Amino acid sequence: MQFHLNGFKPGNYQVPDEARKPYPNPPILDLPREVDVLIIGTGPAGLTMARQMSEFADIKTCIVDMAPGPLLFGRADGISCRTIEIMEAFNSSEMVVKETYQLKQNTFWEPDPQNPQNIKRTEKIKDARGGLSEFTHGIVNQARLHELLIDGMANSITNLHPHYSRELLDVEIDDTQTQDLKAHPITATFQRTDQAGAQKRETVKARFVVGSDGGRSRLRKSLGITLQGDSADKAWGVMDILLTTDFPDIRVKSFIQSQDHGAVMTIPREGGYLCRFYIELDALAKGKRATDINLSEQDLIAKAQKIFHPYTLDVKEVAWWSIYSVGQRIADRFDNRPLNSPDTIIPRAFVSGDACHTHSPKGGWGLNTSLPDTFNLGWKMAAVLQGKAHPKLLATYSTERRKVAQQLINADKELSKLVATRPTAGDASEKARIDTAEIEAFMKRQSGFVSGTSIEYAPSYICTGQENQELATGFKIGQRFHSAIATRVADGRSQHLGHLVKADGRWRIFLFGGTENPTNAASSANRFVDYLANSTASPVLKYTPKGGDIDSLIDTYAVFQQQDLSMHDLPDYLWPAKGKYALRDYEKVFQTQEDNDLYDLRGIDRDAGCVVIVRPDQHIASILPITAHAKVSEFFDTFMRVPD
Amino acid sequence: MQFHLNGFKPGNYQVPDEARKPYPNPPILDLPREVDVLIIGTGPAGLTMARQMSEFADIKTCIVDMAPGPLLFGRADGISCRTIEIMEAFNSSEMVVKETYQLKQNTFWEPDPQNPQNIKRTEKIKDARGGLSEFTHGIVNQARLHELLIDGMANSITNLHPHYSRELLDVEIDDTQTQDLKAHPITATFQRTDQAGAQKRETVKARFVVGSDGGRSRLRKSLGITLQGDSADKAWGVMDILLTTDFPDIRVKSFIQSQDHGAVMTIPREGGYLCRFYIELDALAKGKRATDINLSEQDLIAKAQKIFHPYTLDVKEVAWWSIYSVGQRIADRFDNRPLNSPDTIIPRAFVSGDACHTHSPKGGWGLNTSLPDTFNLGWKMAAVLQGKAHPKLLATYSTERRKVAQQLINADKELSKLVATRPTAGDASEKARIDTAEIEAFMKRQSGFVSGTSIEYAPSYICTGQENQELATGFKIGQRFHSAIATRVADGRSQHLGHLVKADGRWRIFLFGGTENPTNAASSANRFVDYLANSTASPVLKYTPKGGDIDSLIDTYAVFQQQDLSMHDLPDYLWPAKGKYALRDYEKVFQTQEDNDLYDLRGIDRDAGCVVIVRPDQHIASILPITAHAKVSEFFDTFMRVPD
Ligand SMILES: Cc1cc2nc3c(=O)[nH]c(=O)nc-3n(C[C@H](O)[C@H](O)[C@H](O)COP(=O)(O)OP(=O)(O)OC[C@H]3O[C@@H](n4cnc5c(N)ncnc54)[C@H](O)[C@@H]3O)c2cc1C
Ligand SMILES: Cc1cc2nc3c(=O)[nH]c(=O)nc-3n(C[C@H](O)[C@H](O)[C@H](O)COP(=O)(O)OP(=O)(O)OC[C@H]3O[C@@H](n4cnc5c(N)ncnc54)[C@H](O)[C@@H]3O)c2cc1C
Repeated sequence: MQFHLNGFKPGNYQVPDEARKPYPNPPILDLPREVDVLIIGTGPAGLTMARQMSEFADIKTCIVDMAPGPLLFGRADGISCRTIEIMEAFNSSEMVVKETYQLKQNTFWEPDPQNPQNIKRTEKIKDARGGLSEFTHGIVNQARLHELLIDGMANSITNLHPHYSRELLDVEIDDTQTQDLKAHPITATFQRTDQAGAQKRETVKARFVVGSDGGRSRLRKSLGITLQGDSADKAWGVMDILLTTDFPDIRVKSFIQSQDHGAVMTIPREGGYLCRFYIELDALAKGKRATDINLSEQDLIAKAQKIFHPYTLDVKEVAWWSIYSVGQRIADRFDNRPLNSPDTIIPRAFVSGDACHTHSPKGGWGLNTSLPDTFNLGWKMAAVLQGKAHPKLLATYSTERRKVAQQLINADKELSKLVATRPTAGDASEKARIDTAEIEAFMKRQSGFVSGTSIEYAPSYICTGQENQELATGFKIGQRFHSAIATRVADGRSQHLGHLVKADGRWRIFLFGGTENPTNAASSANRFVDYLANSTASPVLKYTPKGGDIDSLIDTYAVFQQQDLSMHDLPDYLWPAKGKYALRDYEKVFQTQEDNDLYDLRGIDRDAGCVVIVRPDQHIASILPITAHAKVSEFFDTFMRVPD
Repeated sequence: MQFHLNGFKPGNYQVPDEARKPYPNPPILDLPREVDVLIIGTGPAGLTMARQMSEFADIKTCIVDMAPGPLLFGRADGISCRTIEIMEAFNSSEMVVKETYQLKQNTFWEPDPQNPQNIKRTEKIKDARGGLSEFTHGIVNQARLHELLIDGMANSITNLHPHYSRELLDVEIDDTQTQDLKAHPITATFQRTDQAGAQKRETVKARFVVGSDGGRSRLRKSLGITLQGDSADKAWGVMDILLTTDFPDIRVKSFIQSQDHGAVMTIPREGGYLCRFYIELDALAKGKRATDINLSEQDLIAKAQKIFHPYTLDVKEVAWWSIYSVGQRIADRFDNRPLNSPDTIIPRAFVSGDACHTHSPKGGWGLNTSLPDTFNLGWKMAAVLQGKAHPKLLATYSTERRKVAQQLINADKELSKLVATRPTAGDASEKARIDTAEIEAFMKRQSGFVSGTSIEYAPSYICTGQENQELATGFKIGQRFHSAIATRVADGRSQHLGHLVKADGRWRIFLFGGTENPTNAASSANRFVDYLANSTASPVLKYTPKGGDIDSLIDTYAVFQQQDLSMHDLPDYLWPAKGKYALRDYEKVFQTQEDNDLYDLRGIDRDAGCVVIVRPDQHIASILPITAHAKVSEFFDTFMRVPD
């Protein structure tokens, strides 16, 4: 898809340039008085939270932003593999895949040793992220991702829409009520930001509040949560431009280090013409902020032109630009509980995304870490609100995501050092060459982290069974379920198993059968299924809400090595009757593909098979032997509740 | 994606069952007085015509239907590979791919020789259509395909919407004006069909009219075009149902032949629960129509139950049903010119889709032949209206598509015979077994035709160069350009070359380079490009409208076997400056992929290379040697015009 040829046009890329209009600002409707979940901010973190909540008809959600409408320009643009996997969980990966610009190569440019005023390509390497996911990371305007989430909310059962033009002024939490799940201890005060609103104030009461209100988070400040780490000392100019140049690598991601004028990183963008430049600026004086830097877009262009020497750089249009500086900082806690609180104290307010971790834009991690924050929190909050899980589950958000944020900040520090090391006049070429090799090595080493695919939650009662890891070495406990393809028994269709794990709050049990034929009643697979289907201790029978379909809380899939199975020879539970007509669901049983055997791909024990429990956020909660029936019950008993 | 569990719900499948609503009937706006193109009917043929016209800002189109709004239920449900390719040309393949149910297997059931009152499976075979296209044929409600076309029209530059609640009463053509392209010789009279419309009449004047008004086409009758062939003698009951059964192959396409009760064909449908049944009914008495058959849905169910014996069939909901009978019939001509007219006479009225060919539903050809009818006509009409092509081009619609319709009818006759041959009491098992083998053989032999991928237009001035076919044996002249993957030189991205051929009215020239390095100015590739870019005889220079981008009429791509090329070493013409900023287009040059070499896949002559000219409807117009410069000019000179 090509677009933006005659100027950048924000909006729906499915509409051709000539007809495309910016997303309209929706009409301003009154805020609700009382909700279950109040979300501040319509960035990636807030919208993901809202999108997740929108799946549940019994949860009342409100999402608010001070901006007048949806984002149109700028900000982040890198969409990692893991982010696309999450969009698939929301049933919206197609447009991301279609519209993103794929980065397949990196080039490195440095001062030419012969003539150090000129830059020269030292290397062109393949991007290191192949094979980590069935999706390929890419580049697209952050606003498009927002739009897909907003569309998903609108299409959902709750028909949820964001409220704009409201600034959060203050949040109060009534501490006497926080242990009472049914109470609404949160009172949030908003002020209209639009002219017609005449600064009108509104208050919303809520059971929970989620601050996804960015780096300057008001909620974080209200909660007295402090950021730790280095404040910004380095500023970057960033601009999205339409340009002509004789620089040969303009459609490839390039790191360009000049002798005397600093560095530029260029990223080709969606549509084939747009390009993003990150331009290194001078170190910030102590106590100064990026906003204190008095540079115009023309200054940024002039600086980039100097770095590009001897190549020309003719900027035809600046679609968006900004001076951007961020320190590597992290909140001491991600919820309102005092530090080191036990998990018996119920958190009521949460911070997510840039509100609790900030770092440089170089790794493309801002959006890609913010969105999984609330993808982690969302299902937990739904389960607690619906009475399906013990409230202690909410405390795991802070533990799990804070560790990721800390890793992120460490990685960012390392990368920043590598990228910002400017060769000194004397040993330019030698030093420069080392830097490139180091960046390349870093990228290789960190490729899983950069892609988001190797993010791993620490052991806990929802990340357990580490002693059984060798039963499936390619499904790493704590990491996301790495999708693989199998053939559906009922109709022969190829199916990505990971795409069965939709963001609908359900748990998944994947049973991978061993060598025994599953049609045999004495086989371990058959007996495991029998346990789930019939044992009084079965978590499926125990926790599935009355009147709900048998798979509405825990959704079980089976994968077998045996070929030519027939559904009718397998236990009923694997093709259960569902819904008001008791129709059979034929989409739960799979067999391996000869040329593409997932037992090989994911290191599954062929003899014994295994059971993989997958969380609603697609992370692997546990691996168990097929025979460990009681362990499955134990796992769910730790935190699940029978709804009233 | 699973849906319809608790009942069939028409509408947008991206909305979950609980929230989905039928497509609303849009408000009724007055018809325009005068248009360039008037289209009757919003079935697949009419909507494809309208979707194609909607791409052109300078063409005024109106599409009208007598129904009160978009289709919701029933009719065709098979989407062939070729249809998905066409949807990709309209930039809308993703939802089709996502929502369709893929048929991977066929089973055949026949009277059990041991106990002929029971049916028994005789065979389960893989679907024969692998490898024919990068897409897989599938099954989805015809209404969803309509919706994608309607969405595309709305999103297009012309923001086109269908007009509903108008029945075409009559069309008059002023014969004195038909040779004057600028004239509006068509006068169509409509009558409102909605209550509020009070049978109000409206007339629309048009330069061209396209009748996509189905089997009983009023336009066809107005034009005095007659259908030839057999009128219907066989009726089928068709129903879309939610059911439970112990029939093991319910999620696989099955042909079921009973001993005494006739045959059923079952087709599993999108969403995992719905199923379509075609039930063979008794032969129609002479002069009778399907509508004369006095059968209820309960009768159909009872009949199916008998055929299913000994399996149970418990129908929970009938989403849609119909008695459907069609003869194999074809119009004697597809436009208003008298039979055997020379192409100097300009056709002004056209029939397409069911209006000019009807046949049984068994092959799933109705939708899949109707849609390509107007995909063939659309670009031709646009080119003539825009003054870019000689009006004689319009006569090729009837020649090209009538041949396809004739093939279709022959194939349908053959298939109908195979499917409808009922084993007689005596030699049931023997005879039956032969039928199955014959159906299977038919399916294999006809797989390209069934998929629509081997549809081939006869030699003509827009299907020429047959003497050069051996330069690229896998690109069959007259057939659609069979897509293959190559790597984009500028950024390393993998690209399906076929997906570059969008339905935007442009011609494509694919230059496949030989062994000479294309950076060498003396190479044949370089000289061919130089001819296109600089020769006074170049069709690109001659026919591209003034002020238009260099690729706006003829869009040239180059594919090379040489690796590690750099755009900057190639002629400017291959990365042309475009648009108001003269930005470079870096997406026109490709290189082969080592593991997936398209020269091998498509049998391209490695030494000599070749030039493949592709029509706006993706069919291959010509193959030429790279050195045949003048031939390229000749090709376009035959029918192209310089717009005034
Ligand atoms: C100006 C800017 C430039 C950036 N440039 C880059 C870049 O070049 N590359 C990159 O990778 N990342 C960049 N980022 C970071 C990236 O966009 C973020 O990491 C990502 O958007 C984080 O998502 P979030 O949802 O946590 O917060 P944000 O996307 O920041 O969203 C926060 C939202 O909260 C709203 N909000 C804030 N305070 C209030 C309040 N009191 N009341 C109501 N609403 C409020 C804001 O209007 C905003 O919509 C940039 C961010 C900004 C702000
Ligand atoms: C009742 C029915 C059942 C079918 N069942 C099957 C099936 O089971 N399997 C299968 O493969 N195919 C089936 N088909 C055929 C398949 O739907 C068609 O082959 C396909 O839709 C052809 O597309 P089309 O655009 O040519 O015409 P159609 O889809 O028939 O569209 C014609 C349109 O023109 C409109 N129209 C007709 N006359 C006028 C008028 N005078 N004024 C204004 N508008 C008018 C109609 O309302 C209709 O919307 C069925 C068709 C029908 C009508």
